[in-house]
This record gives sequence, structure tokens and C-alpha cells, in this order.
Amino acid sequence: MTLNALYAQSGGVTPVINATARGVRDAVAQHPDRIGRLLAGCDGLLGVLEERLIDASALDEAMWDRIAQSPGGAFGSCRLKLKHPEEQEALFARVLAVFQAHNIGYFFYNGGGDSQDTAHKIATYCNQKGHPVICMGIPKTIDNDLKGTDCCPGFGSVAKYIATATMEASLDVASMCATSTKVFVLEVMGRHTGWLAASAGLAQQREGDPPHVILFPERVFEPDTFLKAVDTAVQNHGYCTVVASEGIKNQEGQFLSDRGLRDAFGHAQLGGVAPYLAELIKERLGYKNHWAVADYLQRSARHVASQTDVTQAYALGESAVTLALDGQHGCMPVIVRTQDWPYRWHIEHVPLAHVANHERMLPESFISKEGFGITPACVRYLKPLIQGEAVPTYHEGLPCYARAHAPCLPKQLPEFSVPK
Amino acid sequence: MTLNALYAQSGGVTPVINATARGVRDAVAQHPDRIGRLLAGCDGLLGVLEERLIDASALDEAMWDRIAQSPGGAFGSCRLKLKHPEEQEALFARVLAVFQAHNIGYFFYNGGGDSQDTAHKIATYCNQKGHPVICMGIPKTIDNDLKGTDCCPGFGSVAKYIATATMEASLDVASMCATSTKVFVLEVMGRHTGWLAASAGLAQQREGDPPHVILFPERVFEPDTFLKAVDTAVQNHGYCTVVASEGIKNQEGQFLSDRGLRDAFGHAQLGGVAPYLAELIKERLGYKNHWAVADYLQRSARHVASQTDVTQAYALGESAVTLALDGQHGCMPVIVRTQDWPYRWHIEHVPLAHVANHERMLPESFISKEGFGITPACVRYLKPLIQGEAVPTYHEGLPCYARAHAPCLPKQLPEFSVPK
Repeated sequence: MTLNALYAQSGGVTPVINATARGVRDAVAQHPDRIGRLLAGCDGLLGVLEERLIDASALDEAMWDRIAQSPGGAFGSCRLKLKHPEEQEALFARVLAVFQAHNIGYFFYNGGGDSQDTAHKIATYCNQKGHPVICMGIPKTIDNDLKGTDCCPGFGSVAKYIATATMEASLDVASMCATSTKVFVLEVMGRHTGWLAASAGLAQQREGDPPHVILFPERVFEPDTFLKAVDTAVQNHGYCTVVASEGIKNQEGQFLSDRGLRDAFGHAQLGGVAPYLAELIKERLGYKNHWAVADYLQRSARHVASQTDVTQAYALGESAVTLALDGQHGCMPVIVRTQDWPYRWHIEHVPLAHVANHERMLPESFISKEGFGITPACVRYLKPLIQGEAVPTYHEGLPCYARAHAPCLPKQLPEFSVPK
Repeated sequence: MTLNALYAQSGGVTPVINATARGVRDAVAQHPDRIGRLLAGCDGLLGVLEERLIDASALDEAMWDRIAQSPGGAFGSCRLKLKHPEEQEALFARVLAVFQAHNIGYFFYNGGGDSQDTAHKIATYCNQKGHPVICMGIPKTIDNDLKGTDCCPGFGSVAKYIATATMEASLDVASMCATSTKVFVLEVMGRHTGWLAASAGLAQQREGDPPHVILFPERVFEPDTFLKAVDTAVQNHGYCTVVASEGIKNQEGQFLSDRGLRDAFGHAQLGGVAPYLAELIKERLGYKNHWAVADYLQRSARHVASQTDVTQAYALGESAVTLALDGQHGCMPVIVRTQDWPYRWHIEHVPLAHVANHERMLPESFISKEGFGITPACVRYLKPLIQGEAVPTYHEGLPCYARAHAPCLPKQLPEFSVPK
């Protein structure tokens, strides 16, 4: 009897994670002699533990076409990090039981650094218990902070969104600045690293173009230097576009977004870096301004995805399957860049243990000397990743998106309650 | 000697206002026997007063191709409302002097309700002073609140953006809600009317689809009813998407965005409806949530523009010219709908005096009984306006956008300083 494969999505989702799912499914479908069905965990590992699995191979082609071009995790994702098997024996034993009950011989885990750590532990555990499972990690994260790969699927599309939004909003501000808004502040994701903030720099095609000020979490926020840079831009160009990472901190090491806001009744309020900066600018420089917080809009903007990103996301899913069938185990396919422009890349693989729990920071050499822009080296790195437009199909004015809809497979095991 | 035409952009810009500029330019170019050059005011009426004019007919075709598909006002816009000629004689006299100096016989003013009022006053003044200028208004406003037209150019594209963003972010939340974010709040524009908030309702293709709660400025915000609706959505669907108009007010008539926020040092902070609602939800219901404020991103998102909107914007610009050449004066071309689906429309015209200073509200019949959704009648109205994808051309991964670049025409008049 051929073994089944299990695919699960993990951690924060991306606009292209479902392209990876499609790559896995297509590759599995090409090897009916080697792999039986492709099952998927509902809500990632949570669904595996709760034995909520669907038969992803049974979804029809039209459904897969929609899923593959949809943002979010079509099968559901979760934030669930496993500790050591000694500490959470019950959880590991349950995963093993589910694998055995559903005849799982291959486990494809699509997630970030934490997820690869979990995948690695599961593989080791199953091996030790005498039920070998070929376990493959597949990278994804808009934060682009995974080690061992040129880039992470999801990042290129969000970078394209941020660069596009920066251009667009700046054109709006530029046209109004004579009598109205003079400063626009856009807050982008990236709590620990400045990869996404840096991508706004791609909007700058000529000297003086926006964004005029990028705030990286790698640099301490100094109000006076910042305000001076804003003022200089307004003096020189009539307006200023600021792109700020949500993760910037002040000299005390405190997140600017977490600064004890109170409403009129004394209730604590969630902050947001952008409104803080906007207020600072208004108070200290007197400029009328507007601010936006893109939040999930950036992470889910599949309608403006990078074709390069979609292609890589799909290829990594496909490769995970072919690597597994080639006898690899406990590793993750990664992107290796061989040329910047035109961009050339291929897929290699690295051991899961090497990527787990490492954060790849934005290199210092990618941030300009004064600290508010990106360097030509950074542009050379980023630019290839946003190439090509993967416009989704539309129906009656809106993109054709879908989540995976299928009944769960009949349960073989007793109920299991995952500890919160 | 043939008279020249003057085109100027006014008020808040839209993603398609430059398509209107292109329509004006193309129509003018077809009548070299009737109209000489097409001049454009830099920064709208401000540039007219300061005699900062460019020769828009001299811009080459490649530049016009880029301009026509760019968001923002390619010639610059301004917020400047003229009072009565008796109160501001100097300003009216200056406009007349500029018209005379540059041989302007046609004035095309592309703006919202206030702008049409100004256009009307200018036309009347010039006429009385013996320099007849054919003055035509051309509608635009993302707020969709102009009287006398089926819709306003700009609105359909922003509606498409909001519906798309609502779908996308909701797919993200839906995939994470098992272990993470359960509520997402998106704040959209529309300070006085709920047209834009309503457009989020287009994302709802089946019962139970997001958005689960829309907050309209037409309805008083009642925290308890709101929280109950959010909680019900989370119970039924696992998550809840809220789309809130920036203009919602509480029972005291106070904007929710203007509620006296103070930071840790006692400084006043700009609000934002979305962070307020997010905090309320967290405090009262305990749900983890995320929020986004789209602000200018929505108003400038030309990359996801509605083709219907672009087509109408262009056609209105064109019609303004042909109406003027047909002997019309002091009027504005408008969209007349003759069929909902498939959408059929044509252009008629209304006197400027009829549109000036009127606000078209969202009809009560467009808001669902419980006040958190839209009705089938609203869908019938909105849906045609977001049809078709006007994807801009891209170069190296980013849209080809441009502002109008040209030297100002030599000044014929002494300097004039516009009072602030």
C-alpha cells in the first residue's frame, strides 16, 4: 500500500502560500505509484492534532485554480510551536498516532523558522518511535528572515505591494501639497527586521523621489534627526513620504507603538507607529499630514503579487516532493541566487536543523549612511524579487478567491484536546 | 485667433482623475480649428491665480500614456474655495486677467461640489466683465456624493479596492483565527457619507461571508449593539471582519476618531476609528485583533482601478469638450444609468448651479435593517461600478506612473500673492 502525504500550513500566512500548496499537490499527483493521497491539516498542526484532515487530492481542478491564486492559508494555519518531546510527550505521541492512523509517510510543513524547528522535532520523534516519516520543510514568510535561502516566498509580493503603495500615495500627496497634506506616513510590517520597510525604497527611481524617509527597526529612533529629515524633504520637494517599520524603538528600547496611550476615560489604547509619527510631525513641524497602517492588507494583497514570488513559491512546493522522493529527509528546499539581473536562481536544499530558530537580519550594508534610505546593493538584492505581475483571474469585478472546502476525513482516533 | 482652453484639477484627487485629463486633451486635439492649445493650471486654481500654467497639448504621447494611468493629480490640485465676487473681488479679477492674458476661452474645472460652485462663480463673473468664458465642470470625487450623476469618477475604483482588500484581509484572518487573530477592523474614507463603507459589502458573495459588520456614518455608533454583532460573527464563523467609515459618530455626535487621546506625556494624539474599535473589542470581548487604516492607499490605488470607472472618467472629460463646442455653458456632464446589469449608461449634462454645494447621501434603503450591512438594492447599484480591471502597464515590477513635467509658460502678468 502506498503511503499518503500530509501538507500543513504554519504561522503567519502570505499572499502566495497557496501557490506552494499547489506545487506540492501537482508534484504528488505526478507520482501515484509512490504517494497515495495528499491530505491537508485544517488549521495547520492544530488540525493534525485534532485529526481534522481533508483529502486535498480530491479537490477538483477548478477549486485548485482558485485556491492557488488566493491569499491567506486555504487550509488554515496556526501559531503552535512544539517544545521538546520530553516536555510535550502527549502532543508528539498524538501526531505519531495520527500519522499512523492515516498512513502518512511524508510530511510537508509550510512555515517559517519556528515551524521548521517543529518539523524537525516531529521527524526525529517519529523516527525514534519506529514510524519513519519523510519530513520536509517548505519556506514561507513575508518577513524574509529565514536563513539559508535567497528569499522567502511571500516577501517579494509584499515588497511589490509596499513599493507600489508608496509610489501611489506619494503621487496623491505630491498633487495636494501646495495647499493641503505635506507629509504622509505609511506603517509597514516587520517587527524585528527591516526587509519590508526597505522594499519601499524600490519606489525611488530618481534622486529625490519618495520615500524620503524610511525608518528601520535596525536603527534607534531619534526624534530630532527624523524631524530634520522630514523638514528637509518638505523644503526640497514640497512634501515628504515616510515609511516606518512597526518595529522601530526609541533609545530606551521601547517600541514606539507601545507607549501608553490613554483615551479621555483613561483606558489604554493600542498605538501604531504611524499615528505617533504623524502627531509628532504636526506638533513639532506644524505640517498637515495623513497616515496609513497597511497591516494585513499588505500581507494578503494577492491582487498585486510578484510573478517571481509566485513562481518560486510553487517551485519550492514541487521541489519538496521531488526531494522527498529522491530520498532526502529532514531538509528544506531553498532559493539560491546565481545572478542579480536578469535574476537567475535555482533550488537547492538545506538541513532543517540549520534554518530552525535563526533570524536573518537586513545587512547593515543595505541601509544608507544617514539611516533613512537603502543602498544600491539593497536595490540589487530586492529588485528581482518584485518582477512580473501575477494578476489573478477576476469574476464580476473581484478576484476569484477561495478557501479549501471539503468535509474532514472520518476520524480514526479518539478525541484529543490540545492544551491552550 | 482661436481661443485656448484651460484645464485644472481641484480638491481631493482620485485614482482616475488623470484619465479625465486625457479625455479633455484628446477631445481638444480633435478640434484644432476651434480650440488652440490646452493649458493646465499647476496645483489647480492656485496655479491659475499665480499664473503657473503649462502647455498640456505640448506633452508628448508617451508622457500622456503614463499620466493617464497615474493616480494623484498629474497637474497638481488644491483646496481653494472662492467666496462671492463681492468678498473676493481681487481673486476674481486676477482669474479674469490670467484668462485674458492667455487667451482662455474655455475653462474645464475637474472637481467635486465645492469646485463646481467656484467654476460657476468664475463663469458668471467673467461673463459680467465682458470676457465670456465657456465654463464646464467635470465631476470627480471618491466620496460619490455629487448630485445629478449616477456616480462620480474615482468612486468605482476605490470601491473595487475596498471590496478587494476586504476579501483579501478576511481570507488572511479566516486562516489564522483558530489560534490567533479573530477580529480584523478596516477603516475606510467617507467622512459624511457611507458610500465607500458600503462598497466593502460587495465582498460578501454568500451569506456569512465577510464583511460581517459595516459601520456607516449614517448610523449612530452604539458600542453594545456593535460588540454583540462582532461576537455573533466570531461565534458563527470563527472570526469577524469589520469595515468602519472614518466618519462614524457616537450618541453625543462626536467623531470616534476625535476622542481626546493622550500619550504617556499627556500630549494629544490623532485617533483613528480602527484602533479605537480594536481596543474596545479587546477590552470588552477579549478577542485578539488587528486593524488597518487605508487612508490615501485607497484613494490612490490605481493598480486595482475599475475599468468602468476609468472609461467613465475619460468619457466625461471628452464630453465636457464636445458639450462646450456644442454651445453649452455653465454645466457639467454626468453619468445617467439606464440599466443595472449589464450596466448601461450614457452622458447627459446638468447646470453647475444644480450640483454645487449639494451632498448626495447614501439612501436609507441601501443599509440593511440591523444597520451593519448593505441591501440587494445597494449591491445592484454598486456592482456595475467595479467591473473590469484597468491594470496599468508595468516596467521592472512597478507601475509606469508619472506627473506632468513641463516648464511653466512665460508669465504675462505681475506677481500675485494668494491670501492664505
